[in-house]
Amino acid sequence: MTYCLGIMLNDGLVFAADSRTNAGVDNISTYRKLHVFEEPGERLIVVLSAGNLATTQSVLSQLEEGIGGIEPVASQTLYTVSSMYGAAQLVGDALRNVTERHGTHVAAQDADVSATFLIGGQISGRRMRLFQVYSAGNFIEATEDTSFLQIGEAKYGKPILQRVVRPVMGLLDAAKCAIVSMDSTIRANISVALPLDILVYRKDSCRAATHQRIHDDDPYFTRVSNQWGEGLRKLYEELPNPAWGDEVDR
Amino acid sequence: MTYCLGIMLNDGLVFAADSRTNAGVDNISTYRKLHVFEEPGERLIVVLSAGNLATTQSVLSQLEEGIGGIEPVASQTLYTVSSMYGAAQLVGDALRNVTERHGTHVAAQDADVSATFLIGGQISGRRMRLFQVYSAGNFIEATEDTSFLQIGEAKYGKPILQRVVRPVMGLLDAAKCAIVSMDSTIRANISVALPLDILVYRKDSCRAATHQRIHDDDPYFTRVSNQWGEGLRKLYEELPNPAWGDEVDR
Repeated sequence: MTYCLGIMLNDGLVFAADSRTNAGVDNISTYRKLHVFEEPGERLIVVLSAGNLATTQSVLSQLEEGIGGIEPVASQTLYTVSSMYGAAQLVGDALRNVTERHGTHVAAQDADVSATFLIGGQISGRRMRLFQVYSAGNFIEATEDTSFLQIGEAKYGKPILQRVVRPVMGLLDAAKCAIVSMDSTIRANISVALPLDILVYRKDSCRAATHQRIHDDDPYFTRVSNQWGEGLRKLYEELPNPAWGDEVDR
Repeated sequence: MTYCLGIMLNDGLVFAADSRTNAGVDNISTYRKLHVFEEPGERLIVVLSAGNLATTQSVLSQLEEGIGGIEPVASQTLYTVSSMYGAAQLVGDALRNVTERHGTHVAAQDADVSATFLIGGQISGRRMRLFQVYSAGNFIEATEDTSFLQIGEAKYGKPILQRVVRPVMGLLDAAKCAIVSMDSTIRANISVALPLDILVYRKDSCRAATHQRIHDDDPYFTRVSNQWGEGLRKLYEELPNPAWGDEVDR
């Protein structure tokens, strides 16, 4: 499984992804799911991938080299598209190319060829944007009302995002929130696991502010995880008793 | 959809369930999913249901009147079984009876006949137990290591349970935790909704300590929801900054 998250704020973008892949619980590996296409000062495009690993790797290759089969046709790449909207379309086109090429063969083996993506970033002089590309190749965009997008194992980590994420929040606060959301998911689903990739982008910079890889033994992650757990326990202990509490304590 | 939760503690049991059912988003109703079979002082058995409403209602009828079709055969009911293990078996048998009777007909309409259940409680002189009955009619039991069980839309509300629920916690604390878990789920999934049913059972009493229905306008629920949300925001603001925080704030 996979958990990838993109948050769009007034000040920039925050991306987070785990790195566990599995073909059954007895075949677990580590693969990067957060991919950076950067020409510092000119463009910063981040692609996060979930789903069939063969599909996502092929799509990533085509986003870098051009869409096509054994001999790629001359096409745009994420280094040549002139807008983030065009970048999202390119991801959708590459995904359709790959799933059409392999879909029936993979289905014949009772496996699932599908994949989904988040793509966000900015090209110099254009708007900063964040998209979620569905397995059919169409896509939706984050807005002020819904300022975060998730792919993969999204449910465990969603409540904290819903409670906390607002477009006005700072980049570092959003990064911490992403770490907590990841931690909740990792605890609940063994197929989501460290190391994590975290990338923070400041609006109009067209370069990554920071790109961190957080490993198992990362003392900051451990501290955040413990402090969050203790804080939650304290929080619910402070919740008021209901009027019917006496019936239970009687 | 549905979200039902059962927590087994050293001191007793806590049950919680929402009450929304839907056949498509354009056909939403309210049905009780927490069902009580009680002879005060002799037995308290609680059954929580998720899945196809026709199936769960038929199963509940058979648990009360005996397993069978138009003319029920003389069989045990939840008022006659002599152990909680027997009660879990009875739920599984009733479920198999109903799904065998209707399964192929429902599948022919591209619908899903399946259902799952939680069943917990105590019969005088016997052990207090909590089970989860799968759609195939087999079942698992809560233990000290895994002291809560969920059916339906389980993921959104699981992280708080994983962080907080321990067998040694008090009944009222566990009830509060169940309310928070429900609140997180209701916020994330529109097909899970108030009113909630909450039942608290104190070990060896063989009667419900309290059985509450929490409606939309319940001031206690609103206060817990708000206090929890504010507490979460404060908690993440207090999280320490990472060493790489300077790269973001620069």
